Amino acid sequence: MLTLYSFGPAANSLKPTLTLYEKGLAFEHKLLNPAKFEHHSEWYKAINPRGQVPALDDGGRVVTESTVICEYLEDAHPTEVRLRPDDYFDRAMMRVWTKWVDEYFCWCVSTIGWHRGVRYMAQALSDEEFEAHLENIPIPEQKLKWRRAREGFPQDLLDEEMRKIGVSVRKLDDHLADNAWLAGGMYSLADICNFAIANGMEKGFAELVNPEDTPHLVRWIEQINARPRVQEMFARVPRERLGPPKD
Amino acid sequence: MLTLYSFGPAANSLKPTLTLYEKGLAFEHKLLNPAKFEHHSEWYKAINPRGQVPALDDGGRVVTESTVICEYLEDAHPTEVRLRPDDYFDRAMMRVWTKWVDEYFCWCVSTIGWHRGVRYMAQALSDEEFEAHLENIPIPEQKLKWRRAREGFPQDLLDEEMRKIGVSVRKLDDHLADNAWLAGGMYSLADICNFAIANGMEKGFAELVNPEDTPHLVRWIEQINARPRVQEMFARVPRERLGPPKD
Repeated sequence: MLTLYSFGPAANSLKPTLTLYEKGLAFEHKLLNPAKFEHHSEWYKAINPRGQVPALDDGGRVVTESTVICEYLEDAHPTEVRLRPDDYFDRAMMRVWTKWVDEYFCWCVSTIGWHRGVRYMAQALSDEEFEAHLENIPIPEQKLKWRRAREGFPQDLLDEEMRKIGVSVRKLDDHLADNAWLAGGMYSLADICNFAIANGMEKGFAELVNPEDTPHLVRWIEQINARPRVQEMFARVPRERLGPPKD
Repeated sequence: MLTLYSFGPAANSLKPTLTLYEKGLAFEHKLLNPAKFEHHSEWYKAINPRGQVPALDDGGRVVTESTVICEYLEDAHPTEVRLRPDDYFDRAMMRVWTKWVDEYFCWCVSTIGWHRGVRYMAQALSDEEFEAHLENIPIPEQKLKWRRAREGFPQDLLDEEMRKIGVSVRKLDDHLADNAWLAGGMYSLADICNFAIANGMEKGFAELVNPEDTPHLVRWIEQINARPRVQEMFARVPRERLGPPKD
């Protein structure tokens, strides 16, 4: 019995969600509500003491870290749909891409995402509520990120993250100019893990990701969105919308 | 034919070096000299355009990223010595540890290492030599790290990195209190990749890593150093010494 604990289908939560859909694996999907800070609740920290989503429970054994979960699903639950190249060199290239998204691409996009979304959640709390909430966050660096989001990230940090996003989308577009997929000539975890971050940037970062500047990246995002399992996933799994309060 | 390009047996270069030794694989070892900036030379950037070691050439195909190389060696060059658990859950736990060292532990130790070593290399250059050298570094973030190392890292950054090192060695010691090895009850890539960073901290960070405060971590470092292949590696592969100039 597989149970996935995650937010809606974006960022790190999208990676194992889409991997499960693509592989056609049956699983129970427990969606946590970030606006209610459910990932910092006691019941969830009993599952992942770090208070982070996603986490996969496989018969009572819990795997954390989105990219590790994806490889675990390929290892432990093989189906006809294979999301890793058989050739080991190509598989290594896939891992260079999944490592890159985890160490570089996801962080710069995350900071801007927090600036545009989490900031408003944090600012909607009173000082007392906010401090009480911080007590529930087990990772010191995450506490600090919440604090900085609420105060507002310094502009020089935001500028630097935007620079890194520019480097990232250029790198993806350059590679996709000569390749249909990121690694091994096939749709793989490299694509799923990078798509998890890149999807939606045509809207949220339209000045950087658009048909003129990054045609190959836009083509690749569209080509993944056109896949039947991706459409099924987005139809079934609700997306959250964090952002400035509506009037 | 396997060729490993690396620095001496420490940090990220130690990971694939030790993996090759443990597995008993024959390979040509091309040691680059960091004091001569060989990793930023044109001949090496033709092998790894990012100008970083280690890199593994396997019959003309080049794998980069130390952790990816280690998994590649397990995939593509199996020997009797297996460095990944067969159980897929344990293998996922191994990957959580290799991911953690790459995303957290190695970075804080690296900054202090640069402060204590690379700084002197950078300061020994004239302004003109230094700027000319920066031109050879392909990664913008690495250029910036060189610049900051030469100027001297800000004290608040050094303090924060020392805090993270404290968190890291506490985490390792706590886990090793109940476990002989990091994952799956066996010596694995999780141990090799973390040992690559932790080895020598009993000397370089004696205030944090010592028999009183972190007895289990010290025991684990000693237990790895006692392995025949580890001793063979250190006997054969010279270590560099970067640091303040000698009188």
